[in-house]
This record gives sequence, structure tokens and C-alpha cells, in this order.
Amino acid sequence: MTATATGLFDPLFSTGAAAAALSDRARLQGMLDFEAALARAEAAVGVIPAAAPAAITAACDAGLYDLAALSAAIANTGNPAIPMVKQLTARVAKADPEAARFVHWGATSQDAMDTGLVLQLRQALGGIEADLSRLSAALAKLAAVHRDTPVVGRTWLQHALPVTFGMKVASWLDAVERHRARFDELKPRLFVVQLGGAAGSLASLGDRGFDVARALADDLKLGLPDMPWHTARDRVAECATMLGLMTGSLGKIARDVSLMMQTDVGEAFEPAGAGRGGSSTMPHKRNPVSGAAVLSAAIRVPHLVGTILSAMPQDHERGLGGWHAEWETLPALVRLAAGATAQMADVCAGLEVDAARMRSNLDETRGLIMAEGVMMALGAKIGRLAAHDLIEDACHRAVAEQRHLRDVLGEEAKVTAHLDAAALDRLFDPLGYVGVAPAMVDRVLAARRK
Amino acid sequence: MTATATGLFDPLFSTGAAAAALSDRARLQGMLDFEAALARAEAAVGVIPAAAPAAITAACDAGLYDLAALSAAIANTGNPAIPMVKQLTARVAKADPEAARFVHWGATSQDAMDTGLVLQLRQALGGIEADLSRLSAALAKLAAVHRDTPVVGRTWLQHALPVTFGMKVASWLDAVERHRARFDELKPRLFVVQLGGAAGSLASLGDRGFDVARALADDLKLGLPDMPWHTARDRVAECATMLGLMTGSLGKIARDVSLMMQTDVGEAFEPAGAGRGGSSTMPHKRNPVSGAAVLSAAIRVPHLVGTILSAMPQDHERGLGGWHAEWETLPALVRLAAGATAQMADVCAGLEVDAARMRSNLDETRGLIMAEGVMMALGAKIGRLAAHDLIEDACHRAVAEQRHLRDVLGEEAKVTAHLDAAALDRLFDPLGYVGVAPAMVDRVLAARRK
Amino acid sequence: MTATATGLFDPLFSTGAAAAALSDRARLQGMLDFEAALARAEAAVGVIPAAAPAAITAACDAGLYDLAALSAAIANTGNPAIPMVKQLTARVAKADPEAARFVHWGATSQDAMDTGLVLQLRQALGGIEADLSRLSAALAKLAAVHRDTPVVGRTWLQHALPVTFGMKVASWLDAVERHRARFDELKPRLFVVQLGGAAGSLASLGDRGFDVARALADDLKLGLPDMPWHTARDRVAECATMLGLMTGSLGKIARDVSLMMQTDVGEAFEPAGAGRGGSSTMPHKRNPVSGAAVLSAAIRVPHLVGTILSAMPQDHERGLGGWHAEWETLPALVRLAAGATAQMADVCAGLEVDAARMRSNLDETRGLIMAEGVMMALGAKIGRLAAHDLIEDACHRAVAEQRHLRDVLGEEAKVTAHLDAAALDRLFDPLGYVGVAPAMVDRVLAARRK
Amino acid sequence: MTATATGLFDPLFSTGAAAAALSDRARLQGMLDFEAALARAEAAVGVIPAAAPAAITAACDAGLYDLAALSAAIANTGNPAIPMVKQLTARVAKADPEAARFVHWGATSQDAMDTGLVLQLRQALGGIEADLSRLSAALAKLAAVHRDTPVVGRTWLQHALPVTFGMKVASWLDAVERHRARFDELKPRLFVVQLGGAAGSLASLGDRGFDVARALADDLKLGLPDMPWHTARDRVAECATMLGLMTGSLGKIARDVSLMMQTDVGEAFEPAGAGRGGSSTMPHKRNPVSGAAVLSAAIRVPHLVGTILSAMPQDHERGLGGWHAEWETLPALVRLAAGATAQMADVCAGLEVDAARMRSNLDETRGLIMAEGVMMALGAKIGRLAAHDLIEDACHRAVAEQRHLRDVLGEEAKVTAHLDAAALDRLFDPLGYVGVAPAMVDRVLAARRK
Repeated sequence: MTATATGLFDPLFSTGAAAAALSDRARLQGMLDFEAALARAEAAVGVIPAAAPAAITAACDAGLYDLAALSAAIANTGNPAIPMVKQLTARVAKADPEAARFVHWGATSQDAMDTGLVLQLRQALGGIEADLSRLSAALAKLAAVHRDTPVVGRTWLQHALPVTFGMKVASWLDAVERHRARFDELKPRLFVVQLGGAAGSLASLGDRGFDVARALADDLKLGLPDMPWHTARDRVAECATMLGLMTGSLGKIARDVSLMMQTDVGEAFEPAGAGRGGSSTMPHKRNPVSGAAVLSAAIRVPHLVGTILSAMPQDHERGLGGWHAEWETLPALVRLAAGATAQMADVCAGLEVDAARMRSNLDETRGLIMAEGVMMALGAKIGRLAAHDLIEDACHRAVAEQRHLRDVLGEEAKVTAHLDAAALDRLFDPLGYVGVAPAMVDRVLAARRK
Repeated sequence: MTATATGLFDPLFSTGAAAAALSDRARLQGMLDFEAALARAEAAVGVIPAAAPAAITAACDAGLYDLAALSAAIANTGNPAIPMVKQLTARVAKADPEAARFVHWGATSQDAMDTGLVLQLRQALGGIEADLSRLSAALAKLAAVHRDTPVVGRTWLQHALPVTFGMKVASWLDAVERHRARFDELKPRLFVVQLGGAAGSLASLGDRGFDVARALADDLKLGLPDMPWHTARDRVAECATMLGLMTGSLGKIARDVSLMMQTDVGEAFEPAGAGRGGSSTMPHKRNPVSGAAVLSAAIRVPHLVGTILSAMPQDHERGLGGWHAEWETLPALVRLAAGATAQMADVCAGLEVDAARMRSNLDETRGLIMAEGVMMALGAKIGRLAAHDLIEDACHRAVAEQRHLRDVLGEEAKVTAHLDAAALDRLFDPLGYVGVAPAMVDRVLAARRK
Repeated sequence: MTATATGLFDPLFSTGAAAAALSDRARLQGMLDFEAALARAEAAVGVIPAAAPAAITAACDAGLYDLAALSAAIANTGNPAIPMVKQLTARVAKADPEAARFVHWGATSQDAMDTGLVLQLRQALGGIEADLSRLSAALAKLAAVHRDTPVVGRTWLQHALPVTFGMKVASWLDAVERHRARFDELKPRLFVVQLGGAAGSLASLGDRGFDVARALADDLKLGLPDMPWHTARDRVAECATMLGLMTGSLGKIARDVSLMMQTDVGEAFEPAGAGRGGSSTMPHKRNPVSGAAVLSAAIRVPHLVGTILSAMPQDHERGLGGWHAEWETLPALVRLAAGATAQMADVCAGLEVDAARMRSNLDETRGLIMAEGVMMALGAKIGRLAAHDLIEDACHRAVAEQRHLRDVLGEEAKVTAHLDAAALDRLFDPLGYVGVAPAMVDRVLAARRK
Repeated sequence: MTATATGLFDPLFSTGAAAAALSDRARLQGMLDFEAALARAEAAVGVIPAAAPAAITAACDAGLYDLAALSAAIANTGNPAIPMVKQLTARVAKADPEAARFVHWGATSQDAMDTGLVLQLRQALGGIEADLSRLSAALAKLAAVHRDTPVVGRTWLQHALPVTFGMKVASWLDAVERHRARFDELKPRLFVVQLGGAAGSLASLGDRGFDVARALADDLKLGLPDMPWHTARDRVAECATMLGLMTGSLGKIARDVSLMMQTDVGEAFEPAGAGRGGSSTMPHKRNPVSGAAVLSAAIRVPHLVGTILSAMPQDHERGLGGWHAEWETLPALVRLAAGATAQMADVCAGLEVDAARMRSNLDETRGLIMAEGVMMALGAKIGRLAAHDLIEDACHRAVAEQRHLRDVLGEEAKVTAHLDAAALDRLFDPLGYVGVAPAMVDRVLAARRK
């Protein structure tokens, strides 16, 4: 096991920063950061000698420890904090035997593990928020540029009506902005210390429990909760659900892009890195590598969120199994969410848009996609019902004869009596029937947090 | 299918109010409320004749429709809004043929279904919040009453240290309060109208799309989103995750209560209604019926949340399968969450606490549970290490001889030299070693929203 | 609540037969069938009077009972068997007071509920197997007809190489056949009686427990397990996983069909029933209604399977919460799986295949899709490396000049020296590079169970 | 990244063998084993030169490759097979340039990855089956030894009736045996090669596709499927569901053991390794470390199974996202399942049973647990109804007066007239009312595969 101990697929599914923040080594560092801060806090309020923290802090560097030995000990201890404390104490004892007596003073394993986890999550979520902000900026640019670029609006995977590509992107952006707001709400609940001692009462600290907890929180720049939360897991579970919501939205973007990137559609493409997604034997292919990564995250993350929720009913003062179910699940979830965010930020920042193909695809149905708009316009002249019947009839003919609807209508006297060729051309201009799509873009852009 | 069409198990797993709010009949009413409000909104801004809404509104009463016929039509139409609009139009036509032309004007099926759903959720969430408030009050009372009632603190299902029952309850309450805060944050994002027309652009309303949407939102007392959210499902998905978090916390309470209610523990009991949970052939049994219901919700809901998250990557402008996956899942989830909230409110309001049994269970380990506290006290006199070795030795003897640790220590000269019988008795008083547990109760109660 | 108490969406997501087999009314009938058979079995082995079963059997007709009253009682009793037995006993008592004493003799609620469930599942699975057989036949026909119909093989949603549509269908069929085999393996484990009495030991039947159980099993034509399985839930859980696997395969077919049915692809279409999937305002649309239903099942079912698995660790001799989590979940899962099977059988039996569009889509990349095959053929003449470089160069030119690869190669002397126009044409015939695709069809068809 | 790249928690949640079989290094070796076997197979049927396999086989040793470099390349290639083939080809080229031309001949990335995965699964499942067999033997021994050891039967976590501990264990064993049978059924479907080339048609092997596939299968001692299964994932998904079912049953055992191990119950205990599960400050504690590990697996695995099922609807000839979702999920699932099996085998082989405590716990309800049995016996003398009323009355008195039911009944003339003290004593012997529990043990043991 090396410092990062990341897996084979991490470069595809995660990001370097998130993988590092959630690595086993970082988990150890998180626990050690807790131990160092705890010693400083306890010294500050006078619970342990003022001299103790120096040696303890000096020994709280994950690089000094043998992860493999620590890992091996877990089979017996049931958690990594116990062997960590043992190794830490031994190391401190060499430098300052008196200080060694005060390692982990008054704390329990879960205090170290949970506070360490919160520190890791703070690190990882910072990275995710930065990528989310990058994605937001990329989408804002795309939406602005393509505010008026017509594209097929598809429902049930069928051509429905024209919309603008900017509107499509604005819808992605709108969700991203809501996720940014959710992060703001989540953080005060999540970024808090865990300190309760063996059964959560801080009994081992006598009446100084809250003094130590407050000093610890200040030291780590975390919040101080009203009481420990060893088996009240909604804080970390909310982090999971928040990332689950975000990943779902990212999956939606990836789904749309990958559908537009089909050889049969060809409207938008993931940026092609050097050799990225290419195939040596099939020169026409450009695989949506990011799409695959993000869509796989969107498949996996809901179940990882479910796992965290399933683990919530934890027994009494320390859960049996429920807590343990979080240990590998939450890091996996955060890594996937982080990777998906970074990938979609890259994709959207470099998205290759083929507006010409978007335009030509609008003709795939030979004008039928404009039928509703033409009917509305004609209805204003000859009455809605008459227009409906006339257009319906023309549509049937267009399909049967494989002709363009505009041409069929151009031969129909009841139509040409009211609409000349120029008027018909205007009615078959997709941009003429996109409603308030561009205004939606404007609204979303205006509401966006810069 | 009758008005409610609730299932066999609803009285156990749901509440009457939530079952009604989420019933098929209410879903129809939700869609009809949308149609009526849409007509009023469109008339108000002048998109349809001022006279049209009267007849439309009059026909928008779910009691007038045949749910079974509507249901049967879905196999062909793929959604209930299409046959609903057809039936509604026919009914309006009888009263006012002109008005019938303007039914569902400019809207798409999903506009009706989503807005109707939001109305149902507003109704159901109101009920859940009321029950959550009731639960909060019940827990606050329990925590205050048992602020200083000693009880075994259990970790890994093992006796660990004494805590107070009030502290245990405060931990439940603390989570409940966070959920109440989350509801406040969720509602502005969730309680918004859906209006986009066939492809989300509101093309069929020309340039009046936002005017109509605003009037519609005002009419229904809902928010106006910056754009439609047909395939941006984070709003409803967040509702699911919020309820998932809450149900997890309720499951934790149910788990603790059911463990305390074991015949082998006997510390707290669900209130016994007339014949509730009784067994005719086993007169000693009192089954935790609510516990079973809430724990089953805590098993199911995480997977239902996962379903909603899995359904998020919906294609383009209207999802194929993803949207449909929400239709039965979200109501099921809300019903379970509502039922679990109501059940736990009832349980906690009527919880029978056996403080005497709590006290006697503390002696199950013959004083070993107090060893840490005694060691701390003795350590102050003879040094921590000496105290540790002495206590450890005494513990081994107590176990081997099946005697109470206090008695073993009372015979030990090194102990009695520093601690007389009264002092020892005090040290074996569980309340003497509960740390800041009572203060935690005070903090949580002080922070509670009244 | 009426006899079926099916929900609004059942006609879309389920089938009439499965909905009926899993309805609340059928659940009641299943429990009553158990009670009647139990009485007959106990009379047969002499545990209860020979005259008792007559009156009991006569009263075991679900149509005689008030489901709503039964449902209401559940809130107190915690399960439907207790009020069912009470109502049944009262009804029997009117006809034969002596027989009424022997209703539910020696049994426990879960005996009735589980055996009743098994009877329901046997009914529902019979329907699913019939539809699966129908689907198999439809796929076999499609595969045979299109054994040699060339179609684009798509990987990562990109055009890759030509395959045959028959091969694609054979792959669907191959999975269906494995599911049919799995059903055969599952049934002996699933179709067994549950009889254990209050704690599973059959204590209330003295030493006649197994005699009664055997007679009961024979009466219901179910297997006799070696012991009860009240908290050993792998039997029903395996049913859930089996259906989960099957639904996943159905979702794969639905996914492929819906992608081929895209307006942009147009290769295959769900059969168009009268008005099915149509849109009045968008005449060109034909919505994949079945695809939506099956894909939504494929989203939901994995989580329902997960629920059943999460519920497996049930406490001691009767689960608290775990068992209850199955009650609504398993029927929902079976209904969805049954609906998906029926829908895909219908879709595949009536699939409209546009072989011409399949052929023309193969030209979307202007011959690039044939590059690998041409390279292999040319390599045999001029060496693999030379061929590779030559073809790669030609591909780049074809893309840059937007010309067909065949035309570019036809101008290349190094090519025409070895391949004349006819040879080139053959190489650009997709059927010439489909490998053993047709042979795969033959293999799968040969292995298919008729 | 080192050879194993296992995670921090693997020693707790997995086993060394399974972790090794599923490690990244083993995944690489699995792909290399495929490449070597493919070369041998192709040479054997004459598709590539007879001399080529030697150099290729020699280079197919995972120890020769740099996993970190391979991992880094994945971000661009989207899968590990592409850089693996590149590195392999380069290495072969150094030894035999001609052979290098035939590396990976006619295959596609997924062929290597899937066949490699199957090889890994075969290895891992072998270990799981061995542990399952070990667990079966341990349970058989426990069941036989405790065939007649009375223990409280608990339903809804309440004392219900006495059963025997052997019966409880037999119920665990019965499920384990079904899982062993399921493995036998699964293996022929799972242990097959994957070989299809770029789009599954084996086009690049001309008409020799099946010859190569057959030779490859023989070389690897795997089965030959009727056609490739790149996007027909039921084979691997069935492996996931099988392990899910098994883990659920293991979770049930762990749940029961951990409940019996509660300080408040004390009936059975995980074996205490040196220092295993101990607590330095709480000397009375012995934490169920294995229970925590297995229960956490039982929480996580259902969601991992759900993930694999959710990933099944994979697009066309190669899935976008679905396939990728399997890559990390399946190994995680297998590791957890393997770890849980090994842990429960250890626990059950070393289970410490406290039969005396089991016996004394039966008296917790002061005889009420025997009320049903006494009523049955008395009923035979004085009629069932009279007995029922008499016993019910005595029970109420026993509860109210906190006396033993036997004592209350011993004072009741209507009882003592029919049952003398010895008879009463016999009726309050729990073993006298365990029905056919011992016979169930015999049946399950007889059916067990040795």
C-alpha cells in the first residue's frame, strides 16, 4: 500500500485531488490532525499539561506511519483508530514519555475517525465546488453563445419541436446553480467536530467536556455541535444525498451530450484530447470517454447514497455494522461525484458544437416538426379547427409522398391564399417557433452566481 | 378503484392524511387544479377569453371522473394527463363549447402532472412537518424529564458506560431539529410551477409564456422558476433525499426503542393501545408494532430514494423511462416517510419508560461498567498507572469470582486507604460518571425550535 | 378498496393477470387457501375432527370478506393474518361452532402470509413464464428473418462495424433463454409451504408437526421444506433477484429498440396500436410507450431487489421490520417484472423493422465503417502494415473531403492494382464483413427451448 | 500503487485470498492470461503463426508491468485493455517482432476485460465456496451438539416460545446449503469466455471465429457460449445476485449472534482472539468485530447488487456507462461477500455458547413463555376454553404479583386436581414444548452436502 493507494480506475472515475483527499493516507492524516488538535485544545483549557501537545503534534504526520501494519491490525481491533493511537503513543513516547500519557485523552475511536472524515470531506468538497463553479462558467458561456441556435427539441427520444441549444444548456446550468446553493446550506451542518468519548457523554473529561470540544473546534476551524453525533448520521448522510443529487444532474448532461454525439446525430462532441477516445481500427469513431465515466457514476452513486441511508439506523451509542458500512462507501461516493464534476466541467468547457448539423437535423422530418407552429399561424387566419384539419391532412400527404411539408402546403390554395412563399418560409424557420427559449437563457444567466 | 385506492397495508405503513394526499384520486385532482388555474391565468393575461375559466374550473373536480376509465387509457397514451384532458374537454364542452377549445391551452402533459404532483407534495409535506413538530415536542418532554435518569450506554450492543436517558433522547431530538431546518430550505426550490409546453419553450404561448407562468404560479401560490424543469429533476429528487434522511433518523429511534423493548432489556416500551401488539397465546408479549413499521420504512426508503436518483439522467426535453420511474415511487416514498413520522410521534409521545429497570440493568456487569470512572478517581490519588493496574486486576477477579467490583475493591487495602465505603458508593453511582450528558440535554433543548 | 385495488398506472406498468395475482384481494385469498388446506391436512392426519374442514373451506372465499375492515385492523395487529383469522373464525362459527375452534390450528400469522404469498407467486410466475416464452418465440422469428439483414453495430453509441440485425436479436434471445432456465432452477426452492407455528418449532402440533406439514404441502401441490423459513428469506429473495436479472435483460432490449426508434435513426419501431403513442399536435411523433414502461421498470426493479436483499437479516425467529419490508415490495417488483415481460413480448412480436433504413444508416460514415474489412483484405495482398497506412491515409482524405471512402480508394493506384471495381464493391458490402454473425443466430436458435 | 493495492479496511471486510484475486494486479493478470491463451488458440487453429504464442505467453506476466502507468493512461483510453495491449505489444516486440504483430489478434478490449474478470471470479468464488463449506461444517457441528439445548425463541424481539439452539442453527445451515446448490447452477453460465471482436461478430477472424473461440475456451478451461455477451450482462449480474443472496443469509446469522451477544442476553459469543474486540478502558466489553464486518457487508451488498442490475440495460453492441459501472462494483461486492463468508465461518467454528445463560433467560418472563404449552396440556384434561380462561387469569396474576406462573398455578385447585407438582414441573421444562425442533435439525443435517 502506497501513500495514495488509489485504484486502477481512479484516473477515469475520480480526480487526482479528490482521490488524494479521500485516500487511506489522507484518512490517517485526518485522524492524526484530530489527535494533534485535541492535545492542543486540552492543553489550552488546562486538561492536560501545557507541554504535551508539542511532541504529540510533531508525531501527527501520516508520512511517519506504516499504513500496511495499521491495516493489518484492523482485523482484530475493528477500526483503524485503535492501532493508530497505539502507534502514535509509541512514537510520542520516544520523544516525550510524559506527553505520551495524554495522547487521545478522553476521546474514543469514533471521535478521531469522524472528525478526520469531516476534515477530508471539507478538502474534497472544496475541490468539487471549484469544479462546479468551473462547470457553471462553461455552461453560462455555452448558453450565451447558443442562445439563439436552433436545435431539435426531443421528447421520448422523438423529434418534437425546435428549441434553442442555449435553452437546453440553460436547463443544465439552472440545476447546477441549485446545487451550488445546496452546498452552502449543507456545510454548516457537516463541518463540525465529533467529540464524545466512549459513550458520547465526555465523562472522561469530567465537567470540562464542552470546553475541550469548543477549543478543538476552534483549532480545526470547524463548528461545535450541541452534542456528539456518533449514531445520528444525518450530517454525513446529507453530504451523500447532496452529492447524489448533483451526480444525477451531471448524468443528465452526460446523457444529453452522449446522445447528441451519436454518429447518427452528430450535434455536439466531447473535446478530443490527443488520442482521447480514438480507435485505431475504426478511424471514424470518437468515443465519449467522459460520458462513459459520468454515466457510470450516475448509475453507481444512487446506490451508494442508498447505502449511506440504509446505514443510518445505528444502534444506541455506537452502531454495529451501520457505521462500518460508511467507511468505504462515503469515500467511493465522493470520489465518483468529484470525478463526474471535473469531467463534465472539462467536457462543457471544450464542447464542440456543430450548429450546422443541428440545423440540418431539424429537417429530418421534412418540416413536420414545424407543423404545430404553422397550424397556430394559419389558425389565426382561417380558424383553429379548419387549420388543424388542413395541416393534419397535409402532414399525412407529406409522409405518404415523402415530401417536405412546406412543399405540400405551398401547393394548397387554402394556404397560399393566406400565406405567400415568404410567409411560409418564415413559418418553417425553426427560430420562429422557439417561444421564450432565449428569454429563459437570459433569466438563468441573470440568476447565476458569478 | 375507489376514491382513495389505498393499499391493504396503508394503515400500518402510512397515515390517513398522507395516503389521501398521495392517492390516485388526489393525483387526478392535482392535475385538474393545474388545468383550472392555467385557464384562470391565461384569461387573466388575455391569452384565452375571459369567459373560458368558469366552465373549466367547474369541471375540475376529481369526483366527477371515472378513475378506472382513465387508468385503462394509460396503456395507450402512456400517461394519465392525456385521457384526463380528453375527459375534461368533453365535460367542459357540454357546458360551454367555446371554453372547451381552451382546455389545457399551450400546456403539455408533464406540465399538468408535475404541477399537480407539487401540489400533492405540498399537502403531504405539511402533514409530515406537523408530525415532525409533534415528535419534536414529545422528545423535548422526554429529554427534559429524563435529563438525569441513568441508563446503560451501549456501544457495539455491549454495555459501555452509563449515560442518561435524556442524553439519548436529546440525540434523537437534535437530528429531528436538523430535519426541520432542511424542510425550510427545500420548500422554495420544490414548491414551484411546471409550465413549458411540448418541448419546454412555451412556443404555443408565443411571447406570453412567462406572463402566463407567473399568473399561474400566483394563482396556485407556488413559486415561478426561471425556466421549466421537465428533465431537471433535482427539485423532486431533493424532496426524496430529504425524506430519506429523515426516515433514516426515525429508523434510528425505532431501532433504539425496539432494542430497549426486548424482553431481555425491558427499559422502554411503545404505548400499548387497546389490544395493540398483543398476542392471544403468548400473554407476556407486547410486539413493537410501530417499531416494525418504522424499521421497515427505514429499510425501504433508501432504495426508493436511490430509485429517484437513478431516474435523474432523463433524456433531452422529456425523459424516456426516467420520468415514468418517479410516478409510483415518489408517492410510495412520501407515504412511508409520513407514516414513519406519525408512528414515531405517537411512540415518543406515549413512550413507557421503566427507569427502575434502566437502573438495574446498569448492574448487569456487576460494577464493571463503572471501572473507568473508579480508575480515574483512584488515579487522582495514587497515580494513573497504578490505578489502572489495580483496577484491571480487580476487574479480572470480579469476573472470575462472579462478584461485584465494588465488593472486590472494598476488600483491597490499597483502595480503602484512599476511598472509604461512602466514597466507593459514590463512585459506583452511575450518575456520578455521566460527564456532561445533562448539559447536552440543556443545549439541545435550548436550540430547539418551539 | 375494490377487489383488485390496483393503482392508476397498473395498465401501463403491469399486466392484468399479474396485477390480479398480486392484488390485495388475491393476498387475502392466498391466506384463506392456506387456512382451508391446513384444516383439510389436519383433519386428514387426525389432528382436528374430520368434520371441521367442510365449514372452514366453505368460508375461505375472499369475496366474502371486507378488505377495508381488514386493512383498518392492521394498524393495531401489525399484520393482516390476525384480523383475517378473526373474521374467518366468526364466519365459520355461524355455520359450525365446533369447526370454528380449529381455524388456524397450530399455525402462526406468518405461516398463512408466507404460504399465501407463495401461492400468489406461483400464479404470477406462471404468467411471466408464458410471456417469456412468447417473447422467446417472437425473438426467434425476428432473428431468423433478419439473420442476414445488415445493420450498424454500435459501440459507445458510435458506429463501429456492420453486424446483422439477426445477431442483435439473437443476443437478446440468448439472455431470455438463460432466464427461462433460471426459472426452472428457482421453482423447487420457492414453491414450498411455510408452517412452523409461533416460533417455528410446530410445538402446538406436538409430534404431528411434519405429518401436518406434509399433508398441507400435498394439498396445495407445494414442496415440503426441511424446516420452516420464517427468517431465512433466501427463497423469496431469490425470486426477487431472478426477476431483477430478467428485467435487466428486458431493459436492454427496450433500450436498444428505443435508440433504434429515435427519429434520427429510424431502424425499428414499436408496433403502433390504434392511437398508441401518438401526439395530436406533433403528427410525426410515435412515442415508444412500451419502451418507457420497460425502461422505467429497469430503473425501479434493481432498487426493489436491493430492498428485498436489505431485508434479509431478520431477527431470530421472526423479523422486526425486515419481513414487513417485503410485504409491499415483492408484489410491486413482480408486477413490474410481469408488465415488462408482457410489453416486450408485444413489442418484439410486432416490431416494425425498416431494413432499408438500416442499410442506408450504414453509409452515414461514407464507408469508414468498412475500413477495417477493406484493410484486412488489402493486407492479404500488400501486407498488413502497408495496408494499414494506406487505408488510414485514405480515411483521413475521405473525412476531409467529405467523400465516400470507396471513391477515394477507387482513385488510388496501389489499391486498384489489386482490387478492381467489383472487388471494391464487394468489400463495401456490409454483409461481407459480419464475421460469424449469421452462425451465431443459428447457434442460439438451435439451443432455444421450443 | 503496489501489487495488491488493497485498501485500508480490507483486512476487516475482505479476505486475503479474495482481495488478491480481485486486486488491480490480478485484473491485469486476468487480461494477460486471456491474451496468452488467445495467441495459443489462434496458433492452434492456424490463424496466426505457430511461433507467435511463445513470446506473447512469456510477456503475459503482470509482474512485468507498471500498473501506475497503465492506470494513468485510462483517462484517455477509457479502459485498461488498450494501454495493456500497447505495453504488451511493445514488450513482445523486443523479444519477437513478428509475434508482436499478432498480439490481441481479432479481439476487442472487452474480450480481454470480461474473460479476465471471469478468471478472477472463478478464483474468488472457489475461495468463497471453500469458506461456505467450512461454515456449513461448523454449523452442522453446532446444530448437532445443541440439537436439544433449549433457548428462548424470539419473535419481534420478544420472548415467544422455547425452541432449541440447534433448530436455530439448522435454519442458518439450511440456507447455507441452498446457496451451495445455487453456486453449482451459476457456474456453467458464468465461467465462459468472452470473444467477439470490435462489434461482437468476430468479423476480424473471418470464418474462423468459433474455431478460435472454442480453442480459447478449452485453453482456459472455460465454457464456450453460443455467442458473445458484451451487452448481455445477466451472467455477471447473476454472480452479483447470488452473492447478494448469500450475504443476506450471512447477515442474518451475524444479526442473531450479535443480538445473543448483547451484554443483556449473553447467550453466545464470537470467539475471542488475542485482544480481539477488547477495550482497554472497558474491561467487560467484548465487541462483536466479525458481526460488525458482516452486518456492514449485509448493508452494502444489496446496493452493490442493485448497481450491477441497474447497469444491465447496456446500449447496442457496447455499453456506455453501464459496463463501466461494473468495473469497480463487482470486485467490491465479491470482496465483501468473501470477507463475510470467511468471518462467519470463523465465528461459527469458534462460537462460544453459554447454554446455562440460554436456560436462565428462559425464566426471564417467570414462566409465561410456557403458558401456551401448559394451556394445551390442561385443555386435554378440562377442555380448551376452560383451560384458556384459567391460564389467562393466572398469567395476569403472575405479572401483577411478580411471581412465577408455575407457583401461581400450583396454588390453583382446578389445576392441581389434574396436574401434580411433578407434572407441573415437567410442563415448565422448556424442552417439553419445543415441538419437532430436534427433528428439524435431523432433517437439515441429513440433507446437508458433506
